[in-house]
Amino acid sequence: MTVVLTTYDWVPEWPRGFVRDIRVRWLLEELRQPYLVETVPLRDKTAAHLKSQPFHQVPFIRDGDLVLFESGAILLHLASGTDLLPEHQRPQVHQWLFASLNSIEVFSIAWLLAKFFDKDEAGAARREPLLRQRLSQLQDAMAGRNWLAGDDFTVADILMADILRLPAQNGLLDDLHPLATYLERATARPAFQKALADQMAHWQAADAKAAS
Amino acid sequence: MTVVLTTYDWVPEWPRGFVRDIRVRWLLEELRQPYLVETVPLRDKTAAHLKSQPFHQVPFIRDGDLVLFESGAILLHLASGTDLLPEHQRPQVHQWLFASLNSIEVFSIAWLLAKFFDKDEAGAARREPLLRQRLSQLQDAMAGRNWLAGDDFTVADILMADILRLPAQNGLLDDLHPLATYLERATARPAFQKALADQMAHWQAADAKAAS
Repeated sequence: MTVVLTTYDWVPEWPRGFVRDIRVRWLLEELRQPYLVETVPLRDKTAAHLKSQPFHQVPFIRDGDLVLFESGAILLHLASGTDLLPEHQRPQVHQWLFASLNSIEVFSIAWLLAKFFDKDEAGAARREPLLRQRLSQLQDAMAGRNWLAGDDFTVADILMADILRLPAQNGLLDDLHPLATYLERATARPAFQKALADQMAHWQAADAKAAS
Repeated sequence: MTVVLTTYDWVPEWPRGFVRDIRVRWLLEELRQPYLVETVPLRDKTAAHLKSQPFHQVPFIRDGDLVLFESGAILLHLASGTDLLPEHQRPQVHQWLFASLNSIEVFSIAWLLAKFFDKDEAGAARREPLLRQRLSQLQDAMAGRNWLAGDDFTVADILMADILRLPAQNGLLDDLHPLATYLERATARPAFQKALADQMAHWQAADAKAAS
């Protein structure tokens, strides 16, 4: 059964390349698993959307009879039984999946929202030291390892690397060379490059459709 | 092998009852699994602590040779193979574990930090509508079900109920009767009551030790 990935029909310029369907696209490319893409409206959100994703977010997937939301849960489901979620490392992969979201992304998003949405420089300045500390602690925790759970790339690296892209783009990895190198190693993978190109092509097609 | 749960040696009054070791205590009580408690200093944090929890947080556990942090990952590990993480509902339980943390708690914490730490009423007011919307959407998503994943209590309910306790204490569930009832049903369970009493006794013992 082909997995169906649902994302938005259109988004403005700034989140392009960062909409969270990229996490699912990346994993499916790593697994060389074909998938279909469907959309829900970003602007005029529908009741049908709420039935699949109760918080009106994306992505969600349909895999046979199963409809699933939360990128972390989607990644775990699709990676289950593959080399990207090795049975003997399952607890550690889970640990780093949760850590990506709850020990790194939470602080990254709080900083980004203050800085770029609220345009609240004082608020951003209050949040920046904690984010920098978390990034530095993450780098220390990975010392001597190529990937989060050990020598091999796992699904946790997909989530962590995607989450590190925004702090990196905003200069917060400039003084953290090993962590920046980890991110480069992850995003240099052909599966990420394909996922990114496919997401960008999706928005370009949406623009073309809107203009026609 | 007895599980060893590590929490802080002491905390001030206000977080007592809410330190996240309660999630692990609750699950272990549900499973009727005995455990040991060890501590790390809250104030003079140690390098040894960083080796088990790279972000200087609690809880973390030791289960034989495995050391694990992130409450979500700890719950998944300890519930694995039990009735609280049924094999046929694994994707849905994962989904609600991630949703508890990333679709509810993130917004709850942002509101609480603005209101009680920053004493920033304008910031709290900006965040409150989104939190209220998320709580209302959660209530709608649970319509017709006693528990998150269906008819049976799972490990996802431990995490979600614990996360709902702070918004509830601050009045945000007053207009959400079904969600408030869900929370009451969860926290009325003897395993939660035991876990809460044990955490409170831990802080009382810490006070007594400090005073002696």
